[in-house]
Amino acid sequence: MAKALIIGAGDGLSASLARLLSREGYGVALAARNPGKLAALAAETGATTHQTDAADAAEIAALFAAEGDAEVVVYNPSYRTRGPIAELDPAEVQKSLQVCAFGAFLAVREAVRRMEPAGRGTILLTGASAGVKGYPMSAPFAMGKFALRGLAQSAARELHPKGVHVAHIVIDGGIRSARRPESGEATLLDPDAIAETYLHLIRQPRSAWSWEIEVRPWVERF
Amino acid sequence: MAKALIIGAGDGLSASLARLLSREGYGVALAARNPGKLAALAAETGATTHQTDAADAAEIAALFAAEGDAEVVVYNPSYRTRGPIAELDPAEVQKSLQVCAFGAFLAVREAVRRMEPAGRGTILLTGASAGVKGYPMSAPFAMGKFALRGLAQSAARELHPKGVHVAHIVIDGGIRSARRPESGEATLLDPDAIAETYLHLIRQPRSAWSWEIEVRPWVERF
Amino acid sequence: MAKALIIGAGDGLSASLARLLSREGYGVALAARNPGKLAALAAETGATTHQTDAADAAEIAALFAAEGDAEVVVYNPSYRTRGPIAELDPAEVQKSLQVCAFGAFLAVREAVRRMEPAGRGTILLTGASAGVKGYPMSAPFAMGKFALRGLAQSAARELHPKGVHVAHIVIDGGIRSARRPESGEATLLDPDAIAETYLHLIRQPRSAWSWEIEVRPWVERF
Amino acid sequence: MAKALIIGAGDGLSASLARLLSREGYGVALAARNPGKLAALAAETGATTHQTDAADAAEIAALFAAEGDAEVVVYNPSYRTRGPIAELDPAEVQKSLQVCAFGAFLAVREAVRRMEPAGRGTILLTGASAGVKGYPMSAPFAMGKFALRGLAQSAARELHPKGVHVAHIVIDGGIRSARRPESGEATLLDPDAIAETYLHLIRQPRSAWSWEIEVRPWVERF
Repeated sequence: MAKALIIGAGDGLSASLARLLSREGYGVALAARNPGKLAALAAETGATTHQTDAADAAEIAALFAAEGDAEVVVYNPSYRTRGPIAELDPAEVQKSLQVCAFGAFLAVREAVRRMEPAGRGTILLTGASAGVKGYPMSAPFAMGKFALRGLAQSAARELHPKGVHVAHIVIDGGIRSARRPESGEATLLDPDAIAETYLHLIRQPRSAWSWEIEVRPWVERF
Repeated sequence: MAKALIIGAGDGLSASLARLLSREGYGVALAARNPGKLAALAAETGATTHQTDAADAAEIAALFAAEGDAEVVVYNPSYRTRGPIAELDPAEVQKSLQVCAFGAFLAVREAVRRMEPAGRGTILLTGASAGVKGYPMSAPFAMGKFALRGLAQSAARELHPKGVHVAHIVIDGGIRSARRPESGEATLLDPDAIAETYLHLIRQPRSAWSWEIEVRPWVERF
Repeated sequence: MAKALIIGAGDGLSASLARLLSREGYGVALAARNPGKLAALAAETGATTHQTDAADAAEIAALFAAEGDAEVVVYNPSYRTRGPIAELDPAEVQKSLQVCAFGAFLAVREAVRRMEPAGRGTILLTGASAGVKGYPMSAPFAMGKFALRGLAQSAARELHPKGVHVAHIVIDGGIRSARRPESGEATLLDPDAIAETYLHLIRQPRSAWSWEIEVRPWVERF
Repeated sequence: MAKALIIGAGDGLSASLARLLSREGYGVALAARNPGKLAALAAETGATTHQTDAADAAEIAALFAAEGDAEVVVYNPSYRTRGPIAELDPAEVQKSLQVCAFGAFLAVREAVRRMEPAGRGTILLTGASAGVKGYPMSAPFAMGKFALRGLAQSAARELHPKGVHVAHIVIDGGIRSARRPESGEATLLDPDAIAETYLHLIRQPRSAWSWEIEVRPWVERF
């Protein structure tokens, strides 16, 4: 059974991915800083769970030691803070760079070490509109998500000719979740809908690979 | 039966789209300057065929008078010429602008007039890497494909909130066809593979629409 | 005396360029569809004037027959219309493509024929934010200005190694003019300020050339 | 006397900037990890020098405590390493993020605290082509320079309406220096030529500000 590893698992996009990939026949592994919140999802999907700090090299190495045979690796973690540059705590910038980008590098590095010899595999990196447009009052998130996009593009150029598919998904809008339910007219992204695009990327034949795609609600301004 | 209209039908991507959409239950209509070449494909897919000059407003109007109830409209026509700017015939620039971009405007306009009242529909515009990067010795094609991308982006911003999905597909590489068969290692895009991405765009829920995606062979430099 | 040819001369940016280049020692030639309006500017700057339809190949050829020794060529013409795609007259799209992009191609072609043998010269193409972002309700302008940008990028890649500098200036905002004076707080671009950036591009040593720069008022959102 | 602070001073671009700004009447302050190498330049330009680790918040704070009245702040530091992702040391990624991007954030934050109340000032961030295109075998540098560009864009959007000019300069090519002299045909960027573009950005009236410009040698492919 092919395996999919989802890093940064929570109750929104990650849960939709876990359910969809499980239905499509994947064995699913979930990693989160607090895996306790994953218990219900794990029970529902038969997933294994791992406690992992995504920005810690040793913890990512341990995660891949256990689940490194995954054919699909998804990296979701994100850290966002807002404020005028003059008032920002430098630690917030560090945290955004570490969680959004450095952890993604660690995961790509571990994934590639296993996928490259096999000549196959898919790595999906969850980006944001902040990765293609630097919004005011949001410098730390722009820095982290731009860095992630730079990693994704560099990795795609290096790894596509090795048979490993790397794609960067630009989520442009808020995602509906238990903590953020929709009220009235639908203006949030449905995580089940996003998951369909992830699955499409996983299934693309290598003759026609994409390295980037954006998704947004029909009513979102862009 | 839902209908799909493919403008600029030939033996490569258009044929793959016709076959895939027919298998998925669409009634297919094909339009080309020389519909004689479509006979075998029409017989195979049960498609209707039309003789249409895509850059002629009256002919596009007549086409949509016949097939305007299409829920999916694909615009493929392209015209490419190469050479140093100093030696180019201005007529070649005109032709590229007319075929790549003006004809697409005509098709979008006719499609929208029918889709917007219905609050649904999908318009797919076939672009090229030349639409995002202006290559040397290729100014006319750059002009035509950049203009197409400008149309696609403007149309997406206008029409997404009306329920009409507009997407621009950047084909980055050559497409395998009867006239351009693959020899040895696969370095061309398989049109069947590209067609899968078109179908994915058609099926995206409006909660998570894309306006642009690129596809290229795994071995293509970018 | 070095010569500068400004195509699409009016009372805003073109007038500022004519005055600045004249002060900097250039002989100035001005071309416009209606050169009558240039009389005062010509008297002030000692410029020659020409009646030229920029989208007409024969008229552009005649203009360069007279002024083809210009070391600097600026192309400014633009045509803008607005409206929902369903209601647009196709002739408006044609006009935008012709004025914004095809005329620019004609000018670049004539300029290059003279500059390339000399191994020097500067071609400046006046773009707009519409050339990098397709706004809703503005498809024709997006098509024309995207096409211009495609031309500029392709021409820069072809001509820079020949010693001819091509640059695309993205004007992001309205330009102050006699017809559009500023009232109260300054939110429009001062054409004299823009002209300084054109002059900088003209003076860049070829060791550090730019092919694109945007200018916008400090208060403009982007 | 207006003051300019150049962080990341060495023998290439920084030296050209110091000389040009000194000639243009600025008092110049230079900061580097190893200020010993700045002695000759300081003697030549009358500059003050500071020993500063650009990625250390306390050291950047101390630098601005001494030179915080600078009207112009330039951030140059960069750290580049190369290699396949599978073989990269995570510490190299950390270093690139810290030097290219986090240090720039620290400098922007300190500069803004002084410039924003004054309603004026210029911050120039030295980028690279790696900040707009993620090259293979160069993931760490792509991550650092993409992050810098995200910071620059976010800061420009926040600070331009406050009267503080932020610009990102994309250096596309190698820069000639004492350690990297030109041999034969000129294919490297002349740092004196780049400095002219920095000076132009400093002098742009706020009615027509740029947030980004690229510079490359005429013979450079792009």
